This record gives sequence, C-alpha cells and structure tokens, in this order.
Amino acid sequence: MIKVVAKGTYLDGKAEEAIELYKELVFETRKEDGCISYSLFRDVKNSSVLTMIEEWESQEALDAHMKTEHFTRIVPIISKLRINSELNIYELVM
Amino acid sequence: MIKVVAKGTYLDGKAEEAIELYKELVFETRKEDGCISYSLFRDVKNSSVLTMIEEWESQEALDAHMKTEHFTRIVPIISKLRINSELNIYELVM
Repeated sequence: MIKVVAKGTYLDGKAEEAIELYKELVFETRKEDGCISYSLFRDVKNSSVLTMIEEWESQEALDAHMKTEHFTRIVPIISKLRINSELNIYELVM
Repeated sequence: MIKVVAKGTYLDGKAEEAIELYKELVFETRKEDGCISYSLFRDVKNSSVLTMIEEWESQEALDAHMKTEHFTRIVPIISKLRINSELNIYELVM
C-alpha cells in the first residue's frame, strides 16, 4: 500500500475555488483501479491549507492515476491557485 | 473525525532510533479511547522522513492523547532526534 500526502497552501480566497475543482477529481479518481482512498482535508487552524491524503494499492496504480485525463486536466488548474505545494509518498512502517 | 499528519525529518541515522521509540507509542496510543488509527509511515524517496498519520474521533480525544504518560514521556525523546517537524490537524472536506 502506498500512502500519498499532497499538501497545498492556497492564495487568499482560492481554497474555495480549488475545492470546487477537486470535486470532479475526487469523483473520477475514486473509480480508478487500485485507488483505496482519496480524500481532501482542510487544516483546522489555516483554511488556506488543503491536503489530499490518498491510499493506492501499488506505485503502478499511482503512476497510472497521474496519467489519467482528469488528473492531467484538473491538477494544473488547481496548482495555479496555490502558493506552494508539498508531496510525500509513503510506505507503512507500523 | 480529526486527521493528524505529524511529519518529521530526522538527523542522519536517527530515523531507526525513532522507529524503536515509536513502537511503544503506537502500541499504547492504539488502546486509547477515540483513537481510530495511528500509523507511522516513511517517505519512499527520503528515509530520513517519518510521518505519523492519525485519525481521532474528536479534538477532545486528541487533546487527551497529548496528555497521556506515554506521549509526554516518549515524544520529547523522539523530537531530539529530529531536524524539524510539521504538524497539521485536519477536518475532512470530501
């Protein structure tokens, strides 16, 4: 199992716009083979921080995800709304 | 549900030492009321990065966790092994 934490800090007022865009990305992604979970979270202390926390059956499933039509169309638009982003890909230790 | 992502970058060679310390913290924490999940992950590209990803039933359960004997004893020791750490507390958006 591969765990992904994709954290973004958004420009003022742009987090809401990103959430709208994420709706389609979440809907389509959850249908993909190998997608265990794909959920969007918001920092309780800083509403400009949105983080996608994902679980994939394999690195291959994650790689395929990043080549899908919905990912390659939507993520570039979302990334224009961000000040910065941070992506960590994890494996379980315990 | 409250989601916590506690990410740490460890001093050279200290991640293994931290993992040993985390064993007791994970064992004790999973027994706590309100703890839904409490799992340690390692970055696949940077083995000096360890991240605890947690789910709690409520902020109150998380607050109680941070006052437990095992947390207050073990976490300060682990934090001496880190270069830096980053804690985000999240609520689910979708």
